[in-house]
Amino acid sequence: MSDTFDTARRMGEIRSFHVMELLARAKALEALGRSVIHMEVGEPDFATPAPVIDAGHLALEQGHTRYLPATGLPQLKREIAGFYQARYGLKFDSNRVIVTPGSSGALQLVMGVLVNPGDTVLMADPGYPCNRNFVVLMGGIPISMAVGPDTGYQLSAERIAEAWSADTRAVMVASPSNPTGTLLDRDQLQAIYEVVKERGGRLIVDEIYQGLVYGDEGYTALDIADDLFVINSFSKYFGMTGWRIGWMVVPQSYVGAIDRLAQNIFISSSSIAQYAALAAFSPATIAILEQRRTEFRKRRDYLLPALRELGFKVAVEPEGAFYLYTDCSALTTDSFTFCMELLEQQGVAATPGRDFGDNRPEQHIRFAYTTEIDKLREGIARLERFLR
Amino acid sequence: MSDTFDTARRMGEIRSFHVMELLARAKALEALGRSVIHMEVGEPDFATPAPVIDAGHLALEQGHTRYLPATGLPQLKREIAGFYQARYGLKFDSNRVIVTPGSSGALQLVMGVLVNPGDTVLMADPGYPCNRNFVVLMGGIPISMAVGPDTGYQLSAERIAEAWSADTRAVMVASPSNPTGTLLDRDQLQAIYEVVKERGGRLIVDEIYQGLVYGDEGYTALDIADDLFVINSFSKYFGMTGWRIGWMVVPQSYVGAIDRLAQNIFISSSSIAQYAALAAFSPATIAILEQRRTEFRKRRDYLLPALRELGFKVAVEPEGAFYLYTDCSALTTDSFTFCMELLEQQGVAATPGRDFGDNRPEQHIRFAYTTEIDKLREGIARLERFLR
Repeated sequence: MSDTFDTARRMGEIRSFHVMELLARAKALEALGRSVIHMEVGEPDFATPAPVIDAGHLALEQGHTRYLPATGLPQLKREIAGFYQARYGLKFDSNRVIVTPGSSGALQLVMGVLVNPGDTVLMADPGYPCNRNFVVLMGGIPISMAVGPDTGYQLSAERIAEAWSADTRAVMVASPSNPTGTLLDRDQLQAIYEVVKERGGRLIVDEIYQGLVYGDEGYTALDIADDLFVINSFSKYFGMTGWRIGWMVVPQSYVGAIDRLAQNIFISSSSIAQYAALAAFSPATIAILEQRRTEFRKRRDYLLPALRELGFKVAVEPEGAFYLYTDCSALTTDSFTFCMELLEQQGVAATPGRDFGDNRPEQHIRFAYTTEIDKLREGIARLERFLR
Repeated sequence: MSDTFDTARRMGEIRSFHVMELLARAKALEALGRSVIHMEVGEPDFATPAPVIDAGHLALEQGHTRYLPATGLPQLKREIAGFYQARYGLKFDSNRVIVTPGSSGALQLVMGVLVNPGDTVLMADPGYPCNRNFVVLMGGIPISMAVGPDTGYQLSAERIAEAWSADTRAVMVASPSNPTGTLLDRDQLQAIYEVVKERGGRLIVDEIYQGLVYGDEGYTALDIADDLFVINSFSKYFGMTGWRIGWMVVPQSYVGAIDRLAQNIFISSSSIAQYAALAAFSPATIAILEQRRTEFRKRRDYLLPALRELGFKVAVEPEGAFYLYTDCSALTTDSFTFCMELLEQQGVAATPGRDFGDNRPEQHIRFAYTTEIDKLREGIARLERFLR
């Protein structure tokens, strides 16, 4: 990149999302009047639920436009803790809840308090691309471990034990995973927790797609232990992407350090978003969200066999999030070019593997089902024409 | 701090704000029914202007609750660029405007793209306490330079030239300054810019209290050169603290790197705040803000002589922000204890110098005039009783 001449060295490691290039091209095509089916976007197509919007209006009327405590509005922290109790029967002190400017903010805080320069953090490849960069930002070294169908595209306790070194500080897992939509089952996660703990490391569990699971109700990693970090968000299940609000639950012993770091780097998360989020756990909102979950499941149940029929391989049934991470090696040896041509010729946008790591990215494409089922059908019809 | 046993080393350098302890005590006293005059708070007492609130409602009605581009809503970037043209006659490409989650977000981005581990960044002491920590977060070394009345509590070109070393990467100045409220005049800033540029460093100018100046209209550092970083915010002049939205204007050559870092660490700033901020530059809003500026000036003009009369020395007339940084050495040798006792005995909260650095903090107290003039009068009456 030409801009690196006068930037800090870390910027040589921090990459753009390639999907941005594709998105820009999709928008240019749309501006020319072309129709584009969007299966690239990691954002629900559903609007923020009405009770949350109403609570946002109320926050504005009541003048809740001031700084709040760095770790969040106490009332919202209690609501979040209450959510774990209602959904998972789990009770803990709400001061362990840290409200953050999106889960991005949570990742910054956790890496900030944990990672020393030179420390390594283990994570799955493919994975959410920004995770690496939060480690890089702190001078740490993200270690991407290639995962595949044999472990459900997840790290395993065995693989973590093998990869552990004296510099390893933490392990990060995600359940459901982006881009693969696969889950870690409770026993697997328990085993991972134990391996990490035995070695004196810290486990970070990304649960930002929690709630968007299509089989079991699921569980939370907090049920396994209270000395791990769980990251969550109002963006995906709760449909609040643009509000920029998330949270994490941290071990009690880290609350002070995280508060201090949050005071310094954020001052406060958005007051309007926090007051609005008070309505996120209301029965009215949850009813809306559960309807949406049903709709997402229908979409997955349509899209998965349809893509398989076209020759995209999905070796492990994705049980959560809103993504299908497909092996396209029977169709192309270059997923990036494939995606660009698919967009140009048929107006279908999907995300090539290279945004998710270096583990055979050219053989993978992520399809998001963040668009209504009729559009998915049209997307499949176009894909069929493209492959003909 | 007991929490540092298992945190990254940087956490040993990142301090809490001492004022938090004082605030907590003030709230406890208020909960007991005691009256407290708040002169410690760095947040305007004025609500967000009505046209901005209205625009917030409209954003919610129109469903503007999605991710926006990482560097900001293009329309808002154009509004911000237009503000510089309207107020300072300055024209530049709006793609140089980076919208951020508060100026805190801007500081993170600028330090992220500039500072390598081991690099030093020069800054004034006293100064805004978080600035140091954004440098620490990137593995850099903040160099606090003691400043006093002789340079208007600002860095000077001469001092910067003397302090420059091979590791110096950037210089940070603020005009108006927090905590001193003093300005850098145009010639001083021009000289600083030249010294920094000659040495191949980068100049960062904090203008987050721009608009809150009580003499001249002021100027912007962007008028001096286009290869410096200017940080600004909707928090202070625009009365939008809790919305968490700010901006910076950066050299064209850094736009790409900053976009990339913002994509990774923030995804997007708040969509609701950005749509609301579109109304921040409207004539109706500006009229409200200018009335407030008049009110702030009246408060300063009352408080400054009143404090001087009580024995607090203010050697340089503060011309901006909403702070008076007073030398209390004629009254106490320990400003922290003084502030704590003042709060306990008379219910007046003010911020002891130690939150702003290591330059004789025990001899300084910051008074904020972020409360109405009748309360300031009552605060002065209580101070008088306290000193009797």
